Amino acid sequence: MSERTELETLGEFGLIDRLNPKKEIKNESTIIGIGDDAAALKYDGKLVLVSTDALVEGVHFDMVYTPLKHLGYKACIANFSDIYAMNGTPKQITISLAVSNRFSVEAMEELYSGIHMACDKYNVDIVGGDTTSSSSGLFMSITVIGEVEQENIVRRSGAKAHDLICVTGDLGSSYAGLLVLQREKAEYLANPNIQPDFSSYEYVLERQLKPEAGRKTIEWFKDNNIKPTSMIDISDGLASEMLHICKNSEVGCELYIEKFPVDYETSRTLEEFKIMADVGALNGGEDYELLFTIDQKDFAKIESNENITVIGHITDKSMGAQLVTPQNTTIELRAQGWNHFGVKE
Amino acid sequence: MSERTELETLGEFGLIDRLNPKKEIKNESTIIGIGDDAAALKYDGKLVLVSTDALVEGVHFDMVYTPLKHLGYKACIANFSDIYAMNGTPKQITISLAVSNRFSVEAMEELYSGIHMACDKYNVDIVGGDTTSSSSGLFMSITVIGEVEQENIVRRSGAKAHDLICVTGDLGSSYAGLLVLQREKAEYLANPNIQPDFSSYEYVLERQLKPEAGRKTIEWFKDNNIKPTSMIDISDGLASEMLHICKNSEVGCELYIEKFPVDYETSRTLEEFKIMADVGALNGGEDYELLFTIDQKDFAKIESNENITVIGHITDKSMGAQLVTPQNTTIELRAQGWNHFGVKE
Repeated sequence: MSERTELETLGEFGLIDRLNPKKEIKNESTIIGIGDDAAALKYDGKLVLVSTDALVEGVHFDMVYTPLKHLGYKACIANFSDIYAMNGTPKQITISLAVSNRFSVEAMEELYSGIHMACDKYNVDIVGGDTTSSSSGLFMSITVIGEVEQENIVRRSGAKAHDLICVTGDLGSSYAGLLVLQREKAEYLANPNIQPDFSSYEYVLERQLKPEAGRKTIEWFKDNNIKPTSMIDISDGLASEMLHICKNSEVGCELYIEKFPVDYETSRTLEEFKIMADVGALNGGEDYELLFTIDQKDFAKIESNENITVIGHITDKSMGAQLVTPQNTTIELRAQGWNHFGVKE
Repeated sequence: MSERTELETLGEFGLIDRLNPKKEIKNESTIIGIGDDAAALKYDGKLVLVSTDALVEGVHFDMVYTPLKHLGYKACIANFSDIYAMNGTPKQITISLAVSNRFSVEAMEELYSGIHMACDKYNVDIVGGDTTSSSSGLFMSITVIGEVEQENIVRRSGAKAHDLICVTGDLGSSYAGLLVLQREKAEYLANPNIQPDFSSYEYVLERQLKPEAGRKTIEWFKDNNIKPTSMIDISDGLASEMLHICKNSEVGCELYIEKFPVDYETSRTLEEFKIMADVGALNGGEDYELLFTIDQKDFAKIESNENITVIGHITDKSMGAQLVTPQNTTIELRAQGWNHFGVKE
């Protein structure tokens, strides 16, 4: 960036004004946006959905290979995804941001350009926030507010024996993209003159840096009169999310490894890192795909959607959570999801 | 604390369970709390109010003299205060937390005990959150959700000429408490064997460490059929907040310095620091009192409330924002509020 304006030259209110130029309100439910003690929203006849996600520099992202614009975009997507996972629609967000003075006003504008881009694409209003300094690093917390008709809400707890287990899109690609970025960082640190070559990793890098949330799937459910029996978004890996559904629904499951949808580029990239594609699909995080269960009567409808794959079925709780190998043996499903306190759980 | 459990031994989900033991839901509007992708709230017939506040170690608080329990309590109060400032009632919060591994599980429990205490006192449900690690320090962002009938909402923008300007409680005390804590910290660092003596500073320290939000005032408004024409909570100092009302309402004001409500202990403490009581009242932050304007017809009602002081009146915009001294001279009102980017604005 050619220009550098120090954060302290604007002050908090100046910065908020600069990052949030007056914009049209997108949603009828947004009555008052930024600029008062609180935003005011109108949600008559629908449930209000609320979810919060925190992103911390050095824990959730590395500034060396995460452009700020992508970071802003991705932070929004992670939040929208939680609302879609309840079969709802995101409508508003608030943003809490703490940044050290190593960031300039222009850097914050870059971050916000990604936030605005995501909000424009998903039709979400920014209705509030708090921007402050930190002694080191960047911390961002986004709270998303959305809506759902009470009768349409889908929880983690509704799966029942014989339901089919489905996922959208493909799995493990975001993790594959992260591995590529980490490798290039290590190479760059060893030899700063080498230019990274990302040409054969476009898909996995896009999945890592600019993921999308499940809006199309939720709209398709509505258009096709489908209500999943349970649903969750895949932020910590398929295994971890599946176990959440099993626990909350008090059921078991059988997942067929050979059914896991893995993109060719993902599989080839994971192979470079000596990681089996199914392991990447099970434990890689940040795909923001939806994992859900449906009653068997909806199978024909689901089959018509090319973006949805049936990967298993729900069983009685006594059967436990099982992976079925291509050789038809079973392995107990365990979560090795991402744990931001540094332990596997 | 005698016990120390490392955060990593519990993992994120274990920590969330430990910090949020299953509790009764306090509000009818809380349909689903913690434990799914999002919380679900029901706000039929009322507006949903949303506000977010961030607290950063080393910027908003100093761990040397801020007990974690007080920090949790105060963070909640700061948020509830924003909802009362819209003439609403806080109902739910979500908590985003990033902590370094220098904090133990017990320390987080201490923080949460303050959060639970505030939520119990103000009848607020904790409906979600995200807890993660940070490479250094503690960052907390709380989002509060509340309700108000659409016809009762009070904004910053409704003040009109001849309205009376009122504040609740007294001003500058929280700032006085902060000065005492900072002085004791400096003395402690110079000589760790000295025990701090806080015996004559109880009130100002309580105001700094355990402030309260404006619930009683809002309830009193309702009981007495009063709707302020504009309102804001005093988090950055009277001067800064008054200028927000003037700007948003497009009016001027006259504030009478001799009317400022300043407690005796506050005034005595500020004097020790060679700060005039009125300067402390104007620019000290974190009082969480309410600043509001009323139509003159409500004067008799306001007069009956001992917790409310009339400190001035609204004028035409062309008159500007003025302070009136006891000698009846005027000074232009300027904000020297707290700016967390290190400049005065």
